[in-house]
Amino acid sequence: MKFGISSLLAALLLSCSAGAFAQQAGAKPEQQIKWRQSVYQVLGWNSGRIKANVDGQYNKDEVVRAANAIAALANSGIGSLFGPGTETGKGWKETATKPEFFKNPQKVGELAGNFNREANELAKVAATGDAAAVKAQFGNLGKACKACHDDFKAKD
Amino acid sequence: MKFGISSLLAALLLSCSAGAFAQQAGAKPEQQIKWRQSVYQVLGWNSGRIKANVDGQYNKDEVVRAANAIAALANSGIGSLFGPGTETGKGWKETATKPEFFKNPQKVGELAGNFNREANELAKVAATGDAAAVKAQFGNLGKACKACHDDFKAKD
Repeated sequence: MKFGISSLLAALLLSCSAGAFAQQAGAKPEQQIKWRQSVYQVLGWNSGRIKANVDGQYNKDEVVRAANAIAALANSGIGSLFGPGTETGKGWKETATKPEFFKNPQKVGELAGNFNREANELAKVAATGDAAAVKAQFGNLGKACKACHDDFKAKD
Repeated sequence: MKFGISSLLAALLLSCSAGAFAQQAGAKPEQQIKWRQSVYQVLGWNSGRIKANVDGQYNKDEVVRAANAIAALANSGIGSLFGPGTETGKGWKETATKPEFFKNPQKVGELAGNFNREANELAKVAATGDAAAVKAQFGNLGKACKACHDDFKAKD
């Protein structure tokens, strides 16, 4: 039962509401893939901005904006964009999600829960303006991203 | 001086910090275009979810998640993704931003300020769970989106 609570939480976070599922189910697989590829691009943009701040000149307001965007997307229900029929296919480009992603909901739920937790924590820390704490928490978020990419994202 | 205050506010919202500009300036034009195209896809995804809720069965939690994502992106500094060199070019696809966009910073600032205001108001209204008020405010946000698209977005 090692993953009992975290996987329950993560499954809730990932699955969103039944309503969300129903509505995303109405979107074509190619559209769902395009949306999720877009979400990851936006996450990448904002992660890059935070990295530039913690590695260089620190601007609290910019970090807050970027961290809030990451947290809001983490909370938005990205899991609903991995609906049936999206195991393969092309959004902006061919999906980079590995087939294993769709076969391991418990593991995916655990990793998604970690990502959500670290993203929300980063938004909290960013609001304090403590650059060192942001750098540390940004590292934690990066580990959560990498853990899922390592297992479930094909190399570009 | 009709646009005095709103354009000043909008210019601030659009331009973000000098730091943001400096960092985005380091990103290649094609990358900036890809990021902004991704942001608009994510805005479209979340707008579609809210529309499905206000037109059909209303799920407060999903609307809150979607509205928060839209507001966080509106606040994130999208204007920094329209840097020098991005007037033409291809991100995921050729940019749909009209040349006029880059020649009318005051008008763009005004429209961007309206979008930010309506997006943040929608997030506030969504938190109340008042479906009728969300529907009305979602209409206001739609008008703000359309106003900018009409003037500055080429047809797909």
